[in-house]
Amino acid sequence: MLGLMQKWPLTCDRIIDHAARQFGNREIVSRSVEGPIVRTTYGQVAERARKVARKLTDEGLERGARIGTLAWNTARHLEVWYGAMGMGGVYHTLNPRLFPDQIAWIVNHAEDSALFVDLTFMPIVEKIASELKTVKTIVVLTDKDHMPESSLDLICYEEWIADAEDGFQWVELDEDEAAGMCYTSGTTGNPKGVLYSHRSNVLHAMIAALPDAMSLSANSVVLPVVPMFHANAWGIGQSGPMTGSKLVMPGAKMDGESIYELLDTEKVTFSAAVPTVWLMLLQYLADTGKKLPYLEKVVIGGSACPPSMIEKFRDLYDVDVIHAWGMTEMSPLGTLGPLKPQFADLPDEQKLEKKSKQGFTPFGIEMKITDDDDNEQPWDGKTFGRLKVRGPAVAKGYYGGAGADQFDDQGWFDTGDVAHIDSDGYMQITDRSKDVIKSGGEWISTIDLENLAVAHPDVAEAAVIGVSHPKWDERPLLVIVPKQGKEIEKDDVLSFMEGKIAKWWMPNDVVFVDEIPHTATGKIQKMTLRDQFSEYSFPDAGND
Amino acid sequence: MLGLMQKWPLTCDRIIDHAARQFGNREIVSRSVEGPIVRTTYGQVAERARKVARKLTDEGLERGARIGTLAWNTARHLEVWYGAMGMGGVYHTLNPRLFPDQIAWIVNHAEDSALFVDLTFMPIVEKIASELKTVKTIVVLTDKDHMPESSLDLICYEEWIADAEDGFQWVELDEDEAAGMCYTSGTTGNPKGVLYSHRSNVLHAMIAALPDAMSLSANSVVLPVVPMFHANAWGIGQSGPMTGSKLVMPGAKMDGESIYELLDTEKVTFSAAVPTVWLMLLQYLADTGKKLPYLEKVVIGGSACPPSMIEKFRDLYDVDVIHAWGMTEMSPLGTLGPLKPQFADLPDEQKLEKKSKQGFTPFGIEMKITDDDDNEQPWDGKTFGRLKVRGPAVAKGYYGGAGADQFDDQGWFDTGDVAHIDSDGYMQITDRSKDVIKSGGEWISTIDLENLAVAHPDVAEAAVIGVSHPKWDERPLLVIVPKQGKEIEKDDVLSFMEGKIAKWWMPNDVVFVDEIPHTATGKIQKMTLRDQFSEYSFPDAGND
Ligand SMILES: Nc1ncnc2c1ncn2[C@@H]1O[C@H](COP(=O)(O)OP(=O)(O)OP(=O)(O)O)[C@@H](O)[C@H]1O
Ligand SMILES: Nc1ncnc2c1ncn2[C@@H]1O[C@H](COP(=O)(O)OP(=O)(O)OP(=O)(O)O)[C@@H](O)[C@H]1O
Ligand SMILES: [Mg+2]
Ligand SMILES: [Mg+2]
Repeated sequence: MLGLMQKWPLTCDRIIDHAARQFGNREIVSRSVEGPIVRTTYGQVAERARKVARKLTDEGLERGARIGTLAWNTARHLEVWYGAMGMGGVYHTLNPRLFPDQIAWIVNHAEDSALFVDLTFMPIVEKIASELKTVKTIVVLTDKDHMPESSLDLICYEEWIADAEDGFQWVELDEDEAAGMCYTSGTTGNPKGVLYSHRSNVLHAMIAALPDAMSLSANSVVLPVVPMFHANAWGIGQSGPMTGSKLVMPGAKMDGESIYELLDTEKVTFSAAVPTVWLMLLQYLADTGKKLPYLEKVVIGGSACPPSMIEKFRDLYDVDVIHAWGMTEMSPLGTLGPLKPQFADLPDEQKLEKKSKQGFTPFGIEMKITDDDDNEQPWDGKTFGRLKVRGPAVAKGYYGGAGADQFDDQGWFDTGDVAHIDSDGYMQITDRSKDVIKSGGEWISTIDLENLAVAHPDVAEAAVIGVSHPKWDERPLLVIVPKQGKEIEKDDVLSFMEGKIAKWWMPNDVVFVDEIPHTATGKIQKMTLRDQFSEYSFPDAGND
Repeated sequence: MLGLMQKWPLTCDRIIDHAARQFGNREIVSRSVEGPIVRTTYGQVAERARKVARKLTDEGLERGARIGTLAWNTARHLEVWYGAMGMGGVYHTLNPRLFPDQIAWIVNHAEDSALFVDLTFMPIVEKIASELKTVKTIVVLTDKDHMPESSLDLICYEEWIADAEDGFQWVELDEDEAAGMCYTSGTTGNPKGVLYSHRSNVLHAMIAALPDAMSLSANSVVLPVVPMFHANAWGIGQSGPMTGSKLVMPGAKMDGESIYELLDTEKVTFSAAVPTVWLMLLQYLADTGKKLPYLEKVVIGGSACPPSMIEKFRDLYDVDVIHAWGMTEMSPLGTLGPLKPQFADLPDEQKLEKKSKQGFTPFGIEMKITDDDDNEQPWDGKTFGRLKVRGPAVAKGYYGGAGADQFDDQGWFDTGDVAHIDSDGYMQITDRSKDVIKSGGEWISTIDLENLAVAHPDVAEAAVIGVSHPKWDERPLLVIVPKQGKEIEKDDVLSFMEGKIAKWWMPNDVVFVDEIPHTATGKIQKMTLRDQFSEYSFPDAGND
């Protein structure tokens, strides 16, 4: 028997309409690419998004068209998202930190029809324009006065929408139609395209807004430092307007001083970013002695948040850090780590231990860990396994069919991460499956070794990779970047680590380098590192 | 182009599974019908719900079967809900405060296959058993020791599930299948059946848990005074387990002292109920001088919450009242009235004015007001019209096809309420369309008149009805119940009201009665009142 409830598709146009109707005067403050702080409202963004939709339709774009963006977090970028979705198109955020060749490859792979570009990224477009096979329209996100000289046929965003008629009617869409697209950041190989649906965007936004996630309300003031081109700005582009939160968009400037300035002048209550951004901010605060009187909570994820960061925010600035884990394939939120009530009376140290894990799943995400034969592993806080997930905002495949082996017939997506889960439901990432070291059939967590190594006072950065070994198959090699001006001895590092981990986890060797390779989202590129050390062999390799 | 996201149906079994997995030890505390306080957990409720599902299947119930409940808010009632839904059935909450004949009519109309009954309501079942045409199984929600004597063939709940095998696999359901059922409370006519789907229940629960609604998290302690038989306990039965909130279930006792005791001993942070419940509590607090140190927020709705109640909670107990409007047809939440940020700096009096309105829609609900010809009316805070709504948790029809004229082809549901909406998006109910008075073609709000009359110190309750008038079609008659031991003069009341409302709104007459008729949910039964005064004619009716 079917229920007798209304069919009301979960489409994203309803989000921006709701924002315009109920929070029409709520502000969106952007640090513009041109320089000044610019203020607009949900009402205006919604109106201008309709103009974008009208113009895209006029340009001949059709339902399902992919619309690339090379843009910072600004109100204009948001207008393009809702305009693209509202005319039945698919916003496709491109990561400008990738190499131009990679960007060109992705644009061609996605078959983008149009590109919306911030001034900052025009050099990229100039460079790749001739390689782009499907792009017919390039719109520069600026006004007439700031239009760059170019031999390309460029459209000026402000002029373009200025003459568009008001009142475009959103295309009526099914909730399963595509709304957005984002390629993974390519840490483990080529970026793969994830195709979000309207439904997944709406459900993810609701989950993201819940009290144990970002806790967004009409009174929130939200600064998404995490870029819109990095996994949907973790959903804030949807959950902000859904709840009427004021948005503070950092544009191109993410250094400590610039972020602090926005936090302070706009009285930001909530923010989200990767650890490196917070490192810069904390350094700025330490240098200047400034405080964070308005900020209540930050979500930190994208890579592991060091416990010391959680501690500093808590002790020095009274800010609650929620450590989160997510993936482009998950829209991206997967787990979040607020303290469950059973820990309310623990001493601070033990609270910190819990909060340093990547957290538990909200409703809408299922997770399990399995061994290599797909046997589910217990939630005992020590057994690790491949982390697999299911949910309405989790990908069921990649655009074009890549990576099909990551999806099984029970709907589980193999995240490529390795983790353990404790009996309280808190998950902790110990590795990427491609990075995990298998020594004599047993797994060694490279993240644990790295965390330990960077705790050494003279170590700036550390990476551990597996190198083949005649007896044990693989053994850990520790690669270290010393802090500037510091000299470290191999034995000094090893004796620092000794006793803090199982003996058989100890790296077989330590090497020192000037730099460790990183991806466009700041993650360590272990593939490249392994290539770099492909000729390396352990001192004990011949005679063990 | 379709998105590439997982199909993960929004079904309610996933809610209880999530609760069991992530919040397995979180408590559900019930004041049992047998007397003592009983403690259980989400883990146990989920396990026992599987037993209920297994036993219902064993009894021969099939997918889509309606399963009636005549029960208070307790953990057992929750087990029955999830057990019923999990085997593909439909929980059907019956309002025990209706007349037994009405209950029998509803059970037969819904064609319930089974009934789960609290001891309290056995007399009702005894009375109507012979009239029930479809009920084959009657389960008494108690243990062996408390089983009543009866000539009926009764099953003891605890014995029944004791021998059920563990590990029942939830039936795989489509999200549009029916999950629950509830008849409207019958204020304006016969109760009509609303049939919730799994999808509407899940989406409503997510909306209800958001910060600007109930703000539910794993650290919340929630006391749903609002009965599970009154529009889904406003969704708490789903949003509680979804977020891991501790539930405190009041069972049969809703007097001030009993509610206070639970609020205090269980450290309740959030509660929800109709105004009359809070009247009793506030009276108890005033009498005893007790305080509410743990309670942070209450949602009040079901009928208009008097501003003085919001004020008292705020000033005496530091509790934030959220005034809400809802309907059985809306699962039930429609609007909620937290303060938007633009009012943060208003003086208390003006804040109170805003908070006394029924509030604004969360994402997922659209509303409009129209005149009798379906023309949309402006949001100016004074033009009133018929309130119409749309959304994924709004009914598209009644069970059996009643009331089809309330649904139009654009998907709008005519709520039967009359309201205005201000430019900030706050809606205020002024009347039911069946109660509104049309004087010389213009509408007079009976709720406004009643609110004004009860502000008179000697008035206990007031109701206004329209009585036909030769010149104006209809004019207001004010019906008053004086406070015990008080005598009031008609002119005294009228002069109290004068100047506070438009002159042409002034009642043409005042009559005093001992009692005003109420429905099973405590609402004024104006139909009955109008019947009672059908012979009445105004003093000025002949010679105006
Ligand atoms: N809190 C966290 N702690 C540790 N690792 C994290 C955390 N959050 C995210 N990650 C890592 O980031 C990954 C998701 O990153 P993203 O989707 O941006 O692309 P990527 O996995 O780096 O790229 P690709 O899949 O193309 O190799 C996760 O699978 C996980 O390995
Ligand atoms: N906060 C509120 N202020 C004023 N009225 C309210 C409020 N909340 C709910 N109501 C009234 O309650 C109605 C919903 O009640 P419910 O669904 O329990 O059944 P009913 O409308 O009383 O019964 P029936 O539809 O069978 O006549 C709303 O339509 C509205 O008239
Ligand atoms: Mg990845
Ligand atoms: Mg009604």
